Amino acid sequence: MKNITILGSTGSIGTNALEVIRNKREEFNVIAMSGHGNYKLLLEQIEEFNPKYVSIGTEEGYKIIKERYSNLEVYIGNEGLKKLGQLDETDIILTAVSGAVGIEATIEAIKKEKRIALANKETMVAAGDLINNMLKEYKAEIIPVDSEHSAIYQSLLGGKREEVKKIIITASGGTFRGKTLEELREVSVEQALKHPNWSMGRKITIDSSTLCNKGLEVIEAHQLFGVDYDEIEVLVHPQSIIHSMVEFNDMSIIAQLGVPDMKVPIQYAFTYPNRVENSCLESLDFRKLSNLTFDEVDNKVFKGVELAYKAGRIGRSMPAVYNAANEVAVDKFINKEIKFLEIYEIIEKTMDAHEVHDVLTLEEVIRADKWARKEAGRKKLWEN
Amino acid sequence: MKNITILGSTGSIGTNALEVIRNKREEFNVIAMSGHGNYKLLLEQIEEFNPKYVSIGTEEGYKIIKERYSNLEVYIGNEGLKKLGQLDETDIILTAVSGAVGIEATIEAIKKEKRIALANKETMVAAGDLINNMLKEYKAEIIPVDSEHSAIYQSLLGGKREEVKKIIITASGGTFRGKTLEELREVSVEQALKHPNWSMGRKITIDSSTLCNKGLEVIEAHQLFGVDYDEIEVLVHPQSIIHSMVEFNDMSIIAQLGVPDMKVPIQYAFTYPNRVENSCLESLDFRKLSNLTFDEVDNKVFKGVELAYKAGRIGRSMPAVYNAANEVAVDKFINKEIKFLEIYEIIEKTMDAHEVHDVLTLEEVIRADKWARKEAGRKKLWEN
Repeated sequence: MKNITILGSTGSIGTNALEVIRNKREEFNVIAMSGHGNYKLLLEQIEEFNPKYVSIGTEEGYKIIKERYSNLEVYIGNEGLKKLGQLDETDIILTAVSGAVGIEATIEAIKKEKRIALANKETMVAAGDLINNMLKEYKAEIIPVDSEHSAIYQSLLGGKREEVKKIIITASGGTFRGKTLEELREVSVEQALKHPNWSMGRKITIDSSTLCNKGLEVIEAHQLFGVDYDEIEVLVHPQSIIHSMVEFNDMSIIAQLGVPDMKVPIQYAFTYPNRVENSCLESLDFRKLSNLTFDEVDNKVFKGVELAYKAGRIGRSMPAVYNAANEVAVDKFINKEIKFLEIYEIIEKTMDAHEVHDVLTLEEVIRADKWARKEAGRKKLWEN
Repeated sequence: MKNITILGSTGSIGTNALEVIRNKREEFNVIAMSGHGNYKLLLEQIEEFNPKYVSIGTEEGYKIIKERYSNLEVYIGNEGLKKLGQLDETDIILTAVSGAVGIEATIEAIKKEKRIALANKETMVAAGDLINNMLKEYKAEIIPVDSEHSAIYQSLLGGKREEVKKIIITASGGTFRGKTLEELREVSVEQALKHPNWSMGRKITIDSSTLCNKGLEVIEAHQLFGVDYDEIEVLVHPQSIIHSMVEFNDMSIIAQLGVPDMKVPIQYAFTYPNRVENSCLESLDFRKLSNLTFDEVDNKVFKGVELAYKAGRIGRSMPAVYNAANEVAVDKFINKEIKFLEIYEIIEKTMDAHEVHDVLTLEEVIRADKWARKEAGRKKLWEN
């Protein structure tokens, strides 16, 4: 029986994780969970999974949960997430909160030498240098939950790290695949929120349409797997059936395939190095499959990937800046303050204005993040 | 430096193996090689690779080689192949002769506890029970060279044997994919010898067009990987880019992809568990790739697969009978004695007439093989 802590249990990854656990109660126990604003769903989850610890984002939710469950240890806010990261009883912590708040809890879990099922992109993007240093010191392990990185993780089993020639990250291409710059100029938030294959949160769906999602994944792959940026390639594969691949030095390519379903990589992060059956998982039916196609990224239109390569190659604080500027820009786009293509403009200008520094402490990570948010948030920046 | 013995160096697999070695002389040395009738090519190969032992199929070739190379140990015929199987100096023996003659040499190499790079389908099909028993006794290892089984071997690294749900063997579908029974009735040898993706020998190209090739691969997969027939599936994939796949119990599918090129699995069998670069190997360019498609086998038209499942499920001597009857039938077809669809008829009638027995000794394997050849060769059988 493994004790699972879920940071972000009310989100898309979190509810998928609970679905995995629901069908495998003999293997997994939810020891702790956290939600942000949706305390009603969190209450239902507490009722069903009976955790020992809970953290909630809002004062309102905190009071209600505290009142209803007297035996429950209840925490609040970022401090609460950090507390959940420190739990000794945890075997595996799933960090499925989005944004920079996931980093601190991950750091705590590393110190406790836990397995981290990492679904928070920002951790390795903004704080990759710091995390990788810590992993040398502490016997924690990070298993990626992102479908692409899980696919890479699984494909890497086909050879040795030094035999890797290239990591091929597949990309659906997002809602706007094939569109021209001209066509993208006036696209709406509502259009950007329609993803062809994956059902995900709003931020990540916009990221998918800008391909900044792939950009973040490129940086994450670099940090997780220790491969050079020259050895990472993004390949558009609109059907999202091949979740990513690894090409080895003998030109043999190992790939991981399946239906687009986050439950597979979530469970894999829980059970690795083993695999287990689960009735909630669905087999890929090749007979129902449409043709699998592949294409290059249109870098002239979708600048999210190239900007990430640039940020990644500069390294140090620049990936954190890329990430934070993107978060700010996406917020602005969702709030209809800016147009779609201005997302790239904000990221690029913020990166241009940044004076790069090390990110080897949490303070340095936060400093880069805060600086970028402030810079990207300046009205002038994107009105030029 | 690894000493390689190549049985069948003048064939398609053999020449590909020599191409691998030619570009990796610092890793591989040809200690022994054998050819059948093409002694001219064998002479060239001897000149280039300077082996210590050679075996040749014909008296004519034997004399010429013996005369020209006084320092060379020269053998002849099946006895010669057996001798090459017994060499102490061998590190890896590639059995790339086609037909039942490969079995005996493999048995010898198992007794010598060598690595066998197995490119001879008949070995595991006709003598799988015997070989698997021997592998329990001797510390030999078999690494498959067939592109499909190599792909499965590589994909199996993604999980544990008991976690395998299904092995998916891909099939190009052969030259006649999509044809109806009516259309197949009058197809010629010349038509059958045109393979869309792979350049191979005549026998195996015909086998590919009848899908008996896949049938043999299903039985081979059963014997090599110890999976039930219910857990082996054949999937038509005309582009031959995904060389085969393994679905694990968590619905995650691991696949091996690459350009259709036997040099990759040949080298992998030489270097496993390592991979090495080789300038003769070509990277798959996804940008040049046409759509990947998948389809079911048309079992009503191409009976080669279902007959193999039937033979495999009956087991014991029946797979050997399937194999031998197919060899006889293909010979007849190549010699224009029978029509294409009569290949299936010969296999089926021979199987129907067979009284199954154990194949736990070489004698029993040969008995089943001989019986089937005689039965399948009877004129009456296929004239009914």
